[in-house]
Amino acid sequence: MRKIIKERGSVYCDNSGWEILKEKANKLQPSKIFIITDKNTHEFCLPYLLKKIKFDSNPEILIISEGEIHKNIQTCTILWEQLSQKGADRKSLIINLGGGVITDLGGFVASTFMRGIEFINIPTSLLAMVDASVGGKNGVDLGILKNQIGVINNPLFVLIDIDFLRTLPKPHFTSGIAEMLKHGLIYSEDYWLKVKNFDERNQKEIETLIWESIKIKNEIVTNDPFENSLRKTLNYGHTLGHAIESHFLISTEKKTLLHGEAVAIGMILSTFLSHEILGFPHQKHRNITDTILQEFPKQTISEKDIEAIIKLLIFDKKNNNGKVMFVLLNDFGSYKIDCEVPNPLIYKAFDYYKNF
Amino acid sequence: MRKIIKERGSVYCDNSGWEILKEKANKLQPSKIFIITDKNTHEFCLPYLLKKIKFDSNPEILIISEGEIHKNIQTCTILWEQLSQKGADRKSLIINLGGGVITDLGGFVASTFMRGIEFINIPTSLLAMVDASVGGKNGVDLGILKNQIGVINNPLFVLIDIDFLRTLPKPHFTSGIAEMLKHGLIYSEDYWLKVKNFDERNQKEIETLIWESIKIKNEIVTNDPFENSLRKTLNYGHTLGHAIESHFLISTEKKTLLHGEAVAIGMILSTFLSHEILGFPHQKHRNITDTILQEFPKQTISEKDIEAIIKLLIFDKKNNNGKVMFVLLNDFGSYKIDCEVPNPLIYKAFDYYKNF
Repeated sequence: MRKIIKERGSVYCDNSGWEILKEKANKLQPSKIFIITDKNTHEFCLPYLLKKIKFDSNPEILIISEGEIHKNIQTCTILWEQLSQKGADRKSLIINLGGGVITDLGGFVASTFMRGIEFINIPTSLLAMVDASVGGKNGVDLGILKNQIGVINNPLFVLIDIDFLRTLPKPHFTSGIAEMLKHGLIYSEDYWLKVKNFDERNQKEIETLIWESIKIKNEIVTNDPFENSLRKTLNYGHTLGHAIESHFLISTEKKTLLHGEAVAIGMILSTFLSHEILGFPHQKHRNITDTILQEFPKQTISEKDIEAIIKLLIFDKKNNNGKVMFVLLNDFGSYKIDCEVPNPLIYKAFDYYKNF
Repeated sequence: MRKIIKERGSVYCDNSGWEILKEKANKLQPSKIFIITDKNTHEFCLPYLLKKIKFDSNPEILIISEGEIHKNIQTCTILWEQLSQKGADRKSLIINLGGGVITDLGGFVASTFMRGIEFINIPTSLLAMVDASVGGKNGVDLGILKNQIGVINNPLFVLIDIDFLRTLPKPHFTSGIAEMLKHGLIYSEDYWLKVKNFDERNQKEIETLIWESIKIKNEIVTNDPFENSLRKTLNYGHTLGHAIESHFLISTEKKTLLHGEAVAIGMILSTFLSHEILGFPHQKHRNITDTILQEFPKQTISEKDIEAIIKLLIFDKKNNNGKVMFVLLNDFGSYKIDCEVPNPLIYKAFDYYKNF
C-alpha cells in the first residue's frame, strides 16, 4: 500500500487516491470546486481526471498559461480575481492539476485567498510527483528570482497517479529524473544506482522508484520541517541550479532550461565543489558527472554567462548576512550545510563541467 | 502591567515594549532590519521610534504611499522587490510602523517573503491599536474587495505606545473609536458605556480603554482562533460596513470613508437588523444609533447607492454557498452568527438610518 498518512499533506500513490478524493470531497461539502490547470494539463490530463471521478456539481475549470515564466504574482492575481468573480468562498475547494508550476502557484493562491481555503494537489509531471508533492512549500517567482514569494502550507492531500506520465513529453520526464538522482546523492547510493540503471520502458519499476523518492523526501521534511539543517540537503545542486535556470530564462541568447536540466548542471558543479572542499571520493565524483551528462547533454556556458550566474547567487534564499551558503556532500548521503565557497572555485567548477 | 504574553503575537502596551524590542532584536540578531512606513508615519512616527531605540546597525526605511487605496498586491510587489534589492534574507526582520494598512500589508509581505520572515508590529493609529494588533490577520485588498488576499500569521510581538496617537488627525482618532464601540456592543454594555462617555482629553482614561479593547479582542481570538463562531462577532457591522467602504471608494461621486466611518454606519444598520430579527431591545437600539451618530455624522446614501452596496455583499468572506451571512445581536454581548437577512430588510435598515 503506497500511502503516507498525515494530519495534512497525506500522499496517496496507489488506486485508493481516487476513492479518497471522492470521500474527502463528499465530507468537505465544498460550496464549489475549482480545478486549476494550464493549457497542457487542460488538454491532456483533465479528461482523464473527469473520467476517474464524478463530482456532485460541475467543477469550475480555471486555465492559466503554461510554463515557469507565468509562475508569478500576476498569474495569482488573475486567479484570485476569477475565484472572486465565480463566487468562490471560504468553503470552496481548489484542485491543482498539473506540474510544479501549477501545484506551487495554485497552492499559494489557495493558501492566501480569503486567508486560506482548502486545496488538493494532483501532480501530473514526474518532477512534481517526486519533488513538489511533499513538504508544503508553495509560491511564485519574483521577477527572475525563483520561489521568492510563498508560504509553507500543506494541501489537504496529494493524489499521485502515474498514468498521467503517459502524457508527458520526454524532456519533461527526464527533468524529473534530475530530482530523483538528487535524492540518491543526498540520501543513499543504493537509490542512486537504482535510478541510474532503471529501464524507462518498465512501468512497474518507474512506479516503485517514484514511491521511493517520495518516501525519501517525506522522511527528510518530516525530520526537519523548518529547514534548519537536514531539509537544506534538498537544495543540493539548486543554489547554482536556480541561478543557471534564471540566467537562461532572461538571457535573450539562451534557450530556456527545464528545472531539471538546470539542476543537473548544478549537481555536477556541486559535486565538484564537494570533491574540492570536502573530499567527496574522486572516482564516484567522475561517475556521477558521467551519469548526469548521459541524461542531460552539455550546455554551452561562457565566461560572461558564469559572471551573470554568480551575480544571481546573492538572491538565494539560503543566504545569511549576504553570504552565499552551499549544501555540499562528503559522500552519498553525508552532507554539510552552510558551506562558503570562494568565487574562483565556482569558476573552476564551471571549467570542470566544460572540459569533462 | 499591560502585557499579554503568548508564544507569538504578545502585546506590550506599557513602557516595557521598547525594552522588549531592544532585547528581541538583540536576541534575533537579524541580518538586516527593515522598517515599513507610509509617508505620514515616516514624517510623524519614525523620528519618535528612532529616538526611543538605537539599533546596532542602521535600519533600511521603506516608504509606501498612504491610504487604503494602496493596500493591494501592487504595493506588496514593490516592497518584495525592494527587500530583494536591498539584500533582505531569511534572517531579516521587518518592523511595521503605521496604521492598519501598514500592519496588515507589512505583515503579509513579511509572511510571504521567502516563505515568511520575522516581523514586529508597531501600530500608530487608534484603529490599528485596538483592532489590527491582535489576532494575526494580515493581507491586502483585491480591487475593491477588502482583505481578500492574506494569511493568518502572528507577528513576533506587538508594541503599543499611545504617544503615537498625538500625531493622529482627529478623524482618524474617531475612526478608531468605532471599533471600540463595537467591542462594547459584542462583548459588554459596561465597556460600551465607558467608551460612550469617555473624555478625549483625559490621556490616562484613553490608555485604560485601549487596553480594555485589546483584552476583549484577545479573549475573543484566543477562544476561537479559526473563526468558527465567537470570532465572527468581530465582524459585527462589517458585512455592510465593508461594502459601504468599498462603494464609497470606487464611486466617483462619493468621498472616501475611513474604515471606522463605514463601520459606524454598518453598526447602526446591523443593530436595526438585530432589533428586527432577534428583538434587540428597542430603547437600547435607539440609544446606540444616537451615540454613533454623535461621533459619526450622517452620510447621504441614495437608493442607487444601496443597490450597489447590496451587490458588493456577495463578496463577503463569511458567505457560504452564495448566501450572505450576518452576525447579529440579541442584546449587548449576546450574539447569533450566520443570520440570513432578506434584501427588503436591508433597504428598511437604510431607511431607518436615513430618517433617524
